Amino acid sequence: MVYRIGVDTLGSESPSRLIVQGVLEFARTNSACEILCIGRTHDLAPVRSNGLAVIECEKAINQHDSLVEILRSESSSSLHVGLNLLAEREIDAFVSTGNTAALMALGRHTLPMLPGWIRPAIIKRFESKKSPFWILDLGANIARKRNLLLQFAYLGTAYAKSMHLTSKPRVAVLNIGAEAHKGPVVLRRVAVELSRQRHFDFVGFIEADLLFDGIADVVVTDGFSGNIMLKSLEGAAKITHHYIREALDKAALSNHELAESIARNVNSRLNSQSYNGASLIGLDGVVIKSHGHADNVGIEAALKLARDEVQAAIPKRLKMHFQELAGTTLT
Amino acid sequence: MVYRIGVDTLGSESPSRLIVQGVLEFARTNSACEILCIGRTHDLAPVRSNGLAVIECEKAINQHDSLVEILRSESSSSLHVGLNLLAEREIDAFVSTGNTAALMALGRHTLPMLPGWIRPAIIKRFESKKSPFWILDLGANIARKRNLLLQFAYLGTAYAKSMHLTSKPRVAVLNIGAEAHKGPVVLRRVAVELSRQRHFDFVGFIEADLLFDGIADVVVTDGFSGNIMLKSLEGAAKITHHYIREALDKAALSNHELAESIARNVNSRLNSQSYNGASLIGLDGVVIKSHGHADNVGIEAALKLARDEVQAAIPKRLKMHFQELAGTTLT
Repeated sequence: MVYRIGVDTLGSESPSRLIVQGVLEFARTNSACEILCIGRTHDLAPVRSNGLAVIECEKAINQHDSLVEILRSESSSSLHVGLNLLAEREIDAFVSTGNTAALMALGRHTLPMLPGWIRPAIIKRFESKKSPFWILDLGANIARKRNLLLQFAYLGTAYAKSMHLTSKPRVAVLNIGAEAHKGPVVLRRVAVELSRQRHFDFVGFIEADLLFDGIADVVVTDGFSGNIMLKSLEGAAKITHHYIREALDKAALSNHELAESIARNVNSRLNSQSYNGASLIGLDGVVIKSHGHADNVGIEAALKLARDEVQAAIPKRLKMHFQELAGTTLT
Repeated sequence: MVYRIGVDTLGSESPSRLIVQGVLEFARTNSACEILCIGRTHDLAPVRSNGLAVIECEKAINQHDSLVEILRSESSSSLHVGLNLLAEREIDAFVSTGNTAALMALGRHTLPMLPGWIRPAIIKRFESKKSPFWILDLGANIARKRNLLLQFAYLGTAYAKSMHLTSKPRVAVLNIGAEAHKGPVVLRRVAVELSRQRHFDFVGFIEADLLFDGIADVVVTDGFSGNIMLKSLEGAAKITHHYIREALDKAALSNHELAESIARNVNSRLNSQSYNGASLIGLDGVVIKSHGHADNVGIEAALKLARDEVQAAIPKRLKMHFQELAGTTLT
């Protein structure tokens, strides 16, 4: 079976040659995937000359456009084109490099919601010391509301199962203390409700410093806090990289391959590019949000995530697991 | 002039021998400071035998006690004792290793607020690639309210000036996007109000991935988001340390001193212990919150911060700068 993946190459803040490089690298190693690039013909000439499909599109959604401007704008932007192709089943997955809020708003406008869902959420896989885990929401919804948070617990569990988590999922809620009386009232209410269900193991509150200790498979948070957490990790990774380079420079290394290899090893684990790509789930289609500054490595990682989700039959299996877990009782 | 610093040694989750070790190391190198340890005589025997003062106290505030329990409890806990000594000017600064919520609640109960202040806030110094900067609130207040956030901007600026920032402070508000239309309505309102004042340079919204780029001297956020950010950075530092050790183990290093020194260098910069200590500001007294898991290095760092604040004449200078900036117009 051939998977067809569309990529919006216009929303990105990285040079288009890096996007092209990532796309070509992915295509070279994934012959079962057909790539369709949406963007400027001039930028995409190397893509076309390598035999990949291109849809010419000049109009990007600007990172600085407001939602009102985006929803009002004519439907010729690369984001509109990509989401429409997905809605019409011309592609199996869509990778966007642009503005999250625009993707969320236009996504909801173009694609149906899955049954029982209130709002889409952004979910991303991380690696703890022991195993993968998933965090949602990472910025699709900024309100900290009971019904959203409850649904994220079910959504996240359904997604983790769809992406091959075989054990009974351990679900935690991100808070500023582990004890049951800590944090905002809404989180404490959500915790009480989650502790009463039997579909997954609710392990209580988790603090952000313990995220990588492998305590939970699914971490639930509002999109504002989730985004602050995500960007803080990114900031920490960047400053670490800076410190490692500084240490190497101080040691005036020229031929110390070992030290270089350590720096490379640490960097490859921390580098957000290798882990680029988050999923907008809740819509009837595979939609991957790539970082606005994703380079070739990042674009390739986002394309791999799109491929894995199509392979895992998202959103079909996601819908099935979500209905098993929660039915439509939460809507 | 001799500075008298009190340390609550009971609230900590670290072994008391580490606390003792940190206290003794600080005392050895800071002969102008008199240390007063509050805790169990048995644990503090080495402190006493080194000639430092000890107040015997058996009753700790439990990390798991609720605020109601803490406020109801009799006033014999180490936290009560320390804050009372500070209120009576028997000590110039108090370092707490316990529960933040308990410190905040009992601190407000025991010490007067500085004039014009609404609520205390927790502020901490960080190092960007270029210069130090300060973030507040880190968990004293969980509500995201306009008047609190506005006051944090003035508070943070006054604190940075008191701690010797000489340039005109650049103030930013933590948000999930840099553009003026991003994030919750309350943050956008606060940004409009801050952009209209002339006491400091308001540089707009900042995303957490750019914290270490040296864009702002003071970063304003609500205590919930600030705490999530702080703990995320801590989690990232821990997993980085894990990766560096893993890389060293993989390389099967025995005599590769260079690689070890790189790991040490990076770790010393990222290690939250060396940067342990946040300040509870807004109360008429120097109150330092040390991490509950602080080891000897962490305790020593918290004591140094207490010393620096006494030296900088906090809260007197803080009060002066705050009144210059905002008067009492914000209350």
